Amino acid sequence: MTIFSSIFKPTLLIHEEKAKKNLRYINEKILSQGKQFRPHFKTHQSAEIGEWFRESGISKITVSSIDMANYFAENKWEDIFIAFPVNILQIEDIVHLSSRISLSLMFEDLETVSYIDNHLNNPISGWIKIDTGANRCGLKNSQFEQILLLAEKIQQSKNIEFKGLATHAGHTYRFNNKEEICRVYDQSVNNLLEIKNKLLVAGIPKVEISVGDTPSSRLVDDFGDVDELRPGNFLFYDIQQYQAGVCKLDEIAVTVVCPVVAVHLDQKEVVIYGGAIHLSKDTHRYTSSINAYGLITFPDQNGWYDHKVFGYIRSLSQEHGVVVFPEGIPENIKSGSLLCVLPAHSCLAVQEMHTFINLDGEKIFTMLS
Amino acid sequence: MTIFSSIFKPTLLIHEEKAKKNLRYINEKILSQGKQFRPHFKTHQSAEIGEWFRESGISKITVSSIDMANYFAENKWEDIFIAFPVNILQIEDIVHLSSRISLSLMFEDLETVSYIDNHLNNPISGWIKIDTGANRCGLKNSQFEQILLLAEKIQQSKNIEFKGLATHAGHTYRFNNKEEICRVYDQSVNNLLEIKNKLLVAGIPKVEISVGDTPSSRLVDDFGDVDELRPGNFLFYDIQQYQAGVCKLDEIAVTVVCPVVAVHLDQKEVVIYGGAIHLSKDTHRYTSSINAYGLITFPDQNGWYDHKVFGYIRSLSQEHGVVVFPEGIPENIKSGSLLCVLPAHSCLAVQEMHTFINLDGEKIFTMLS
Repeated sequence: MTIFSSIFKPTLLIHEEKAKKNLRYINEKILSQGKQFRPHFKTHQSAEIGEWFRESGISKITVSSIDMANYFAENKWEDIFIAFPVNILQIEDIVHLSSRISLSLMFEDLETVSYIDNHLNNPISGWIKIDTGANRCGLKNSQFEQILLLAEKIQQSKNIEFKGLATHAGHTYRFNNKEEICRVYDQSVNNLLEIKNKLLVAGIPKVEISVGDTPSSRLVDDFGDVDELRPGNFLFYDIQQYQAGVCKLDEIAVTVVCPVVAVHLDQKEVVIYGGAIHLSKDTHRYTSSINAYGLITFPDQNGWYDHKVFGYIRSLSQEHGVVVFPEGIPENIKSGSLLCVLPAHSCLAVQEMHTFINLDGEKIFTMLS
Repeated sequence: MTIFSSIFKPTLLIHEEKAKKNLRYINEKILSQGKQFRPHFKTHQSAEIGEWFRESGISKITVSSIDMANYFAENKWEDIFIAFPVNILQIEDIVHLSSRISLSLMFEDLETVSYIDNHLNNPISGWIKIDTGANRCGLKNSQFEQILLLAEKIQQSKNIEFKGLATHAGHTYRFNNKEEICRVYDQSVNNLLEIKNKLLVAGIPKVEISVGDTPSSRLVDDFGDVDELRPGNFLFYDIQQYQAGVCKLDEIAVTVVCPVVAVHLDQKEVVIYGGAIHLSKDTHRYTSSINAYGLITFPDQNGWYDHKVFGYIRSLSQEHGVVVFPEGIPENIKSGSLLCVLPAHSCLAVQEMHTFINLDGEKIFTMLS
């Protein structure tokens, strides 16, 4: 009897041993370079999994929404960085959070700083969001005048302590080898250091640097002159990370187990009960011309077979996935068989599935459960 | 005071009047041609919205999972078609459902028919799933021998009454004008009629035809010789349907209202609190070279402005969306403003958001709430 005999529909299986090993590796790597590790909890969104981090000595965390900050504050996390532009419409929650925990917010315009400062009764930490190339949020090096004005505005505020510069070099996700990812990391950090130096020259006394993405946290040998790292995905990894050369196949720590519901031998395809509502529609590179929605392996006694993959998901609709086995469908696969889908993007698969099951069949809840 | 003064974070807003009008139109169109209307409830997944259908005289419905069948069976729907290949691992639920409602299942292999028949104690209806070109599930016209064997197997079963042929011409979603969509519909129906005639010749006494997709339900003038239609998306429509010429902009009946959290004037972009976890990562054609994740309009007193759109979402991450306003950001848009995102795919946006709010601020729950 394995866990698979109790699985009847799409199920998010977690290999705790792998996840804990992934955590140990990154934690030790970051601490050994004397940096602050502030892991991003959006990957798991689970109070119970959060305790694994606490047991590793971690007390400061990152989240991506005010709701997530509320959830982890209720679960006794007392130092939370909301790595998302401030949503001023949730001012009541922000004020309340600032009264119970050490709260860090990220700013990129003067009006938001004023608005937040005017509403607070308790101190918080303020970071300036810098865009080092991800092209999503933040101010660019070329906007140094605005950055300086913002730093000064935060310094002059009543309730916001200026901490420094934060970035998410999300463009590391666009590359697929160590050399390129390390080059992007170095460029991103150099960019931040240049801004930092200009701020110091301009009279800002202290400027910390906070960065955070899984590819560079895993692959970069020397983090350089940064103070804090905030990766999240490293806990589970996924096929996007695997294809980018960030992790090994046997380090992926979650799978969505899906029943086969139709077998099309001639097409070398099976249909699974497992669609966009279980895996998300996020994709990964499969070949240079094919994007896929996850790769396929099989259950085994110790979890799932993790030395190679056997197929890929070529299309996903709301509840269906179509799996291609390029070398033919293994003989023992039929309707009612279970396949293990290694997801394109584990954070979004967790978001879709809400609740984990571990290999002992125990549920692990998230804030979405 | 409008509903928008009570919205602080991503919110799924439903325009009930539009949705009910969409329902009325399709219902009347299908009934006026003497066809059975068996709407797909995966679009809304809501018992409360289901009642709008019941009030329109509808008593037979379609769902896409056994869990969804259970939910609607609990909400007094007594005739349910599960338009998804049978997941034999959920046999207990299937047996239980068959004891309390009129259940229709879709088959494409002999083993599954035997397996289900052997476990049932109550009669159900059995359909053969035909693939008329969507290339996802089902048997093809070229596999007529298998189709005939399957029809005979179902006829000979103890508990499964053979009903006919079911298809989802999902490939209508790949076209973007009425002519092409109608051509695909006609080809699909002709394909089914050909199989039907061969089955009749081979001695199967009665073969019904059930089809279902929103593009053809809306655009085809004469449904031809089919018995039943099972569209779902027509209730809300979305940008995929709008871009395909299936609906008008002012017929889209749901929007995800998202706060602006950063404004980048130079780039003509704003960042919204609204990401993959609110909208899904499904896309729609924006221009011939750009795919987008939804189009942008603004709140107005009667819901949202529905005569034109002003921008598109160029990228989505877990919680962020980046909106481009090609003609520049309107002056009144700043951090804290609300934008209305007309979603690429409304079914998946509902799946992500779980609960609707109507224009009066009342919540409408779904099975996911």
